[in-house]
Amino acid sequence: MKIEKQQIASLNKSKKAEHTVQLDFALNQLNSKGIDGHAIIQKIKDFQVAIPSWALGAGGTRFGRFSYGGEPSNLHEKLDDIGILHALTNTAGSVSLHIPWDTPEDYDATKQIAASHNITFDAVNSNTFQDQKDAKLSYKFGSLSNSEDAIRNQAIQHNIEVAKIGEKLGSKSLTVWLADGATFPGQSNFQKALQNTENSLKEIYKELPLDWRMFIEYKPYEPNFYSTVIQDWGTSLMLANSCGDRAFCLVDLGHHLPNTNIEQIVATLMLKGKLGGFHFNDSKYGDDDLTVGAIKPYALFLIFNELVYGMANNANNPDLAWMIDASHNIKDPLEDLIQSLEAILIAYAQALLVDQDTLRAAQQDHDVVKCQEILQDAYRTDVRPLLKESRLQADAAIDPLAVYRDLNVRENLINKRGNDSIASGL
Amino acid sequence: MKIEKQQIASLNKSKKAEHTVQLDFALNQLNSKGIDGHAIIQKIKDFQVAIPSWALGAGGTRFGRFSYGGEPSNLHEKLDDIGILHALTNTAGSVSLHIPWDTPEDYDATKQIAASHNITFDAVNSNTFQDQKDAKLSYKFGSLSNSEDAIRNQAIQHNIEVAKIGEKLGSKSLTVWLADGATFPGQSNFQKALQNTENSLKEIYKELPLDWRMFIEYKPYEPNFYSTVIQDWGTSLMLANSCGDRAFCLVDLGHHLPNTNIEQIVATLMLKGKLGGFHFNDSKYGDDDLTVGAIKPYALFLIFNELVYGMANNANNPDLAWMIDASHNIKDPLEDLIQSLEAILIAYAQALLVDQDTLRAAQQDHDVVKCQEILQDAYRTDVRPLLKESRLQADAAIDPLAVYRDLNVRENLINKRGNDSIASGL
Amino acid sequence: MKIEKQQIASLNKSKKAEHTVQLDFALNQLNSKGIDGHAIIQKIKDFQVAIPSWALGAGGTRFGRFSYGGEPSNLHEKLDDIGILHALTNTAGSVSLHIPWDTPEDYDATKQIAASHNITFDAVNSNTFQDQKDAKLSYKFGSLSNSEDAIRNQAIQHNIEVAKIGEKLGSKSLTVWLADGATFPGQSNFQKALQNTENSLKEIYKELPLDWRMFIEYKPYEPNFYSTVIQDWGTSLMLANSCGDRAFCLVDLGHHLPNTNIEQIVATLMLKGKLGGFHFNDSKYGDDDLTVGAIKPYALFLIFNELVYGMANNANNPDLAWMIDASHNIKDPLEDLIQSLEAILIAYAQALLVDQDTLRAAQQDHDVVKCQEILQDAYRTDVRPLLKESRLQADAAIDPLAVYRDLNVRENLINKRGNDSIASGL
Amino acid sequence: MKIEKQQIASLNKSKKAEHTVQLDFALNQLNSKGIDGHAIIQKIKDFQVAIPSWALGAGGTRFGRFSYGGEPSNLHEKLDDIGILHALTNTAGSVSLHIPWDTPEDYDATKQIAASHNITFDAVNSNTFQDQKDAKLSYKFGSLSNSEDAIRNQAIQHNIEVAKIGEKLGSKSLTVWLADGATFPGQSNFQKALQNTENSLKEIYKELPLDWRMFIEYKPYEPNFYSTVIQDWGTSLMLANSCGDRAFCLVDLGHHLPNTNIEQIVATLMLKGKLGGFHFNDSKYGDDDLTVGAIKPYALFLIFNELVYGMANNANNPDLAWMIDASHNIKDPLEDLIQSLEAILIAYAQALLVDQDTLRAAQQDHDVVKCQEILQDAYRTDVRPLLKESRLQADAAIDPLAVYRDLNVRENLINKRGNDSIASGL
Repeated sequence: MKIEKQQIASLNKSKKAEHTVQLDFALNQLNSKGIDGHAIIQKIKDFQVAIPSWALGAGGTRFGRFSYGGEPSNLHEKLDDIGILHALTNTAGSVSLHIPWDTPEDYDATKQIAASHNITFDAVNSNTFQDQKDAKLSYKFGSLSNSEDAIRNQAIQHNIEVAKIGEKLGSKSLTVWLADGATFPGQSNFQKALQNTENSLKEIYKELPLDWRMFIEYKPYEPNFYSTVIQDWGTSLMLANSCGDRAFCLVDLGHHLPNTNIEQIVATLMLKGKLGGFHFNDSKYGDDDLTVGAIKPYALFLIFNELVYGMANNANNPDLAWMIDASHNIKDPLEDLIQSLEAILIAYAQALLVDQDTLRAAQQDHDVVKCQEILQDAYRTDVRPLLKESRLQADAAIDPLAVYRDLNVRENLINKRGNDSIASGL
Repeated sequence: MKIEKQQIASLNKSKKAEHTVQLDFALNQLNSKGIDGHAIIQKIKDFQVAIPSWALGAGGTRFGRFSYGGEPSNLHEKLDDIGILHALTNTAGSVSLHIPWDTPEDYDATKQIAASHNITFDAVNSNTFQDQKDAKLSYKFGSLSNSEDAIRNQAIQHNIEVAKIGEKLGSKSLTVWLADGATFPGQSNFQKALQNTENSLKEIYKELPLDWRMFIEYKPYEPNFYSTVIQDWGTSLMLANSCGDRAFCLVDLGHHLPNTNIEQIVATLMLKGKLGGFHFNDSKYGDDDLTVGAIKPYALFLIFNELVYGMANNANNPDLAWMIDASHNIKDPLEDLIQSLEAILIAYAQALLVDQDTLRAAQQDHDVVKCQEILQDAYRTDVRPLLKESRLQADAAIDPLAVYRDLNVRENLINKRGNDSIASGL
Repeated sequence: MKIEKQQIASLNKSKKAEHTVQLDFALNQLNSKGIDGHAIIQKIKDFQVAIPSWALGAGGTRFGRFSYGGEPSNLHEKLDDIGILHALTNTAGSVSLHIPWDTPEDYDATKQIAASHNITFDAVNSNTFQDQKDAKLSYKFGSLSNSEDAIRNQAIQHNIEVAKIGEKLGSKSLTVWLADGATFPGQSNFQKALQNTENSLKEIYKELPLDWRMFIEYKPYEPNFYSTVIQDWGTSLMLANSCGDRAFCLVDLGHHLPNTNIEQIVATLMLKGKLGGFHFNDSKYGDDDLTVGAIKPYALFLIFNELVYGMANNANNPDLAWMIDASHNIKDPLEDLIQSLEAILIAYAQALLVDQDTLRAAQQDHDVVKCQEILQDAYRTDVRPLLKESRLQADAAIDPLAVYRDLNVRENLINKRGNDSIASGL
Repeated sequence: MKIEKQQIASLNKSKKAEHTVQLDFALNQLNSKGIDGHAIIQKIKDFQVAIPSWALGAGGTRFGRFSYGGEPSNLHEKLDDIGILHALTNTAGSVSLHIPWDTPEDYDATKQIAASHNITFDAVNSNTFQDQKDAKLSYKFGSLSNSEDAIRNQAIQHNIEVAKIGEKLGSKSLTVWLADGATFPGQSNFQKALQNTENSLKEIYKELPLDWRMFIEYKPYEPNFYSTVIQDWGTSLMLANSCGDRAFCLVDLGHHLPNTNIEQIVATLMLKGKLGGFHFNDSKYGDDDLTVGAIKPYALFLIFNELVYGMANNANNPDLAWMIDASHNIKDPLEDLIQSLEAILIAYAQALLVDQDTLRAAQQDHDVVKCQEILQDAYRTDVRPLLKESRLQADAAIDPLAVYRDLNVRENLINKRGNDSIASGL
């Protein structure tokens, strides 16, 4: 299924009058503050977030999974789904493949389908937290950190293989999420596990194409419940530093201990030029993988405030690889992703409203009250008209969710794929 | 496979000399403090913990599962496994069935097998957190709390059915763990969900046999990641009170927010005569379901200190239903359970050492230092000889884990059941 | 110092044109959704929050305190400060006295000053977490829960005395925050401490005037770091129930374990008709007592969503006593309070925008995506024009913070009171 | 007041018979496992922990403080108190001074008193989290990280001054605990604050004597409740690395977010040769500063397991500076410290029991059950006889707490110093 620009344009029509009023008001308000709303609209239009290939089906928990009708059952259907998202939102312009779940069978066909949706291939993801059917050795007790050479080697080779697959598609980066760790005290030797991991990552790194980047993700717990080898940004940074200039840290919003100040981590990593990738989601308890912005939108705004600052001030930090990493346990995955994309752009737009010069002056004066006013004023502004305008300018939907429903997308997918199709992945 | 007393006795022989020395020392030490070690040994011997029928196979996480060879593939094999545990430890004298995973096909045969292992049937557990294959209505959006009458009814009937199954086996209680809740703000109406739940529980309660108890479990999150209807002991107590005299709260150690003082909850519920059941496990981050005592053994001791106090002082509180509720993701489930049982008995024995009179006096004097000394002295005592003696007296193993390995139990199970058998359950 | 309506009106003038444009837009937008903006403005105008008498000076931590110039050094100066707040915001129409810190010396004079500022006397607060200079017995090891009769009695009498003081001023409720607990395991007997507390509260309750309410606050930890007698809402509710119909629970936003779903607690207590009071603040780590809305404004909105629902649907729940309970460690206390009041009203106004009927229908349809859209649409709306209009209509400031600064209030207070005045309290 | 060896020896007599029996049993048990108990006793005897000069008086919270009779009111009395501790325990052989609270007035006299108690001078501590009476500039908005040059300079000079004071006493290290951070979002620029801090630390570092070490402490929150500049070990390590070879990280057990795996941090820092100091305490909620081992003794053991491993295997890591950093809010500070020292030595002794070779083999075999057995066997062993023997051999008390009480130390101190003396400090 593919959504045509015509269909969207037609449905946009009925919203245009209302939109124009709202946009005018918003632009005027910004203008009176000396802010160029059109420049912000352009930045929003340019902002693209990768959709991971595992996110198009229903997710679940260890207690079960409730499937969703019309799930894509192969890579090409997944690309079609992302195509729908991108047509509606103009924000989902790339895909992040997970190997081996979504290894292409026919590279040319895969590239052609992606191109037909204007979708590029972002970072590729390896998987050493599960045993695949044909696996010789098990990752039950770890992969890149394993005390057994043969197991480490298998995991290293898998990562290299993943990069090769990505290369054929035009990807330029590899994301390593290492679930390795221990479930019980004493189970593994912390120092050796860390050293093994460092050595393994170096092996992978040196096999990467020279124009590639490696992203090292961290996470404090789950699926291991006592310790994780790469437990925090400090460990990730140590490892990235020892690998080399093209190794970076990857921040996933859900991968932190309770109450962590994530925006400070973002600022620190950008100062060091070592923030490479960013996984969006939201959570209340742990790595809940909820819709972005569903629980702590102000925290998201504060993080974007640091991202915007860093993108403007940290020339040594590379462009960031943005990705949504959420689990769609009870919502239609496509609707869920539309809500996530909207929340990301809202936080981004609000952060762009922050008057950095005035903020800096207030900080220098220790005028804490004013600093707070500046941030809150940006955050309390209704920026949705700017998002709508950015989409309108790109032939996407003023209101993507409404169009999605008006076009009966899910019903069409169910008709085509059935109610029992299951997306590959977890 | 069944372990004969003969086999155990034979292996106990080699440990006996060492055990006698240790036991004598322990008894002398206790004696010098005015403590009757033999009375404690008797209490340990009498302490029985239910093994849930879902715990005999490998557990997993949402990221995957690494299976274990020789898993029991049906209820009778599960009972055999518990029989092995009980023969070795003399502590696993009952089973807690999970329906529909372990619905008996032939009740007489099931009872006979259980009896052959000296295993009784403890609380039965219902399941409304998953959809079964033949389910008419889905629990995706809740069961006992659902806003739809028909779904609530299906869940109520399932619980009543579970009790009927339990009745045929000699169970005397029903445990209701309700996973219902919301994954996103706004998804459900808190007040209505709670009222629906209260009404549903009353419906179930009134159908229970008059000599049955109902246990209402609570949990703050997972599998729902925004809210859970029965989120804490306060909610559980409210519901138990409104059901009636035979409804009680059930505490699962892993079902609390970070840093919760669980022992205080235990004390409060016993004071009110409303603590009915107890699920053992351990955790560092969330509901990690690790081996009991593997992470916070002192907290376990403090909880047992309240349990022992309550059992002695709260005549209105019923005898407690003890159960292990852990997930065996990377250990042999039987070895894991042996370690859990050991940790439970150690904490229990240490709590029995606390001199309650001296403690009360120190509390009255506000001698905080002495209060701490009293608890720590009990906790720092090596009570393992008392456990060993209790097992020896019951024809079980002085060292259950060593016997388990010496007898090659797992190898035998694999030989019999194969490497790919899979236990029913999650 | 007193701010005259004239001064405010004069400063409002320059903002009026801009305000009118914003208000018109906001009202039109609401109107197009079928919402009566004027009704919301009226509700905002009526919403009054008590300022505690201890909040007008600089707060601190155990590591130190940085004082603020011009702090009020007695009760009358504190009332003057609240008068300033109320004149600017029209939201600070009452004071919550802390005894013995702010015991009036001349009741008539005190009442006269309060009346001159249009300030009424809300709940009075007792203090048994510190020893006062002339104290006969120490609360070091507890007050209402103490194992010693004489100490409990002293604390009971103090609470009764506090109510008598409040009665002379026109207060109608007593707030009991009980810091009692234990710093170390074993230090106190949980069951006895709870029973003592219940008995003590009943003693106080029965001495309260018949038109008074008693609010029982809960808190998980601090200043005791192992356990607190009234650790959570469940305990508070048990105690309120055993005291009687005029005893209620009090929720302080900072008094919860990490990740607690507070809005669910609010809903449960209102369903039971037992939510009496509410203390506003914000926090990231513990009971940080930060400016309301400074960290988690969406959580505040979700809480107000339940409060608004409860106020409309739970006829058996009384009107709530609202209070700010924050600590002003590095900001001008009056500016800090202005920011808190603004954040409260924003959340309240946003919650009033929620279309409860549509939400209920979406909940019934299990349309989780739409439920989220409804809440987020309300939250993302810029309601500040409604707040401004509500103030304008009440002769208060369109922009209270700007007026406060334009009038050099703090400089004036310093001139009058000096740089070294210290507010009584912590 | 000074405790004479004679007094202790005399009180030891009555315990000797019982001790001999317990020691013999313990040594025999260890011997049968191939462990040389005497070697462990020697290591325990050599283990010395610094007592901070601020820990001899009653601590408190922001809600108040309950003072303790007989508090030392000057540095010399504090040294006397540590002398008492050291005489009783043989473990408190050094003092860690806090400047300016305990700046010596007469260096020779101070050194003489310390020498008379066999006490050496460990790390000196600076204080830039409070304003001192004569301070020219305020640290209200930060010290080493402040955006104002003059304030940073004042803080740098203070640290250099502190080192000079320490040099005169024989100290060899400076501990920098930097409370700097922000209480509200936006208040400070993360990147600039971090860079300022790095520059300031380098300034201090280059002024330190060449045989000195600098310890950089980290803490996630408090007294700032939004962010702290040195929030975690990763930041501390970055700063230590940029200062130079003699700069190290300092771990305080209470300075972590909930559920942090501290032992893994210890292992990582020792692997990198960058763990310099260690502050002991215990906590349940935040930086509770409770008696060591009072809440999570098994976690303490696991940490010591890494420390012992690192001391044996990480030749590049320096000897560690050990210190107790607890707050004595309701206990006699000296009794509290005796309990802390005991808990430290117990954990150390248990960790020394771990058979590292067997553990390594079990880890290599992925025998998780056995790994756990090895750690738990060590932890469950009653090592107190070894501690007693180590003290006996050093002419200290078999049972320090009993001797402290038998000699009526606190009563004597009150007689000498009065009930109202107040220790300098917080």
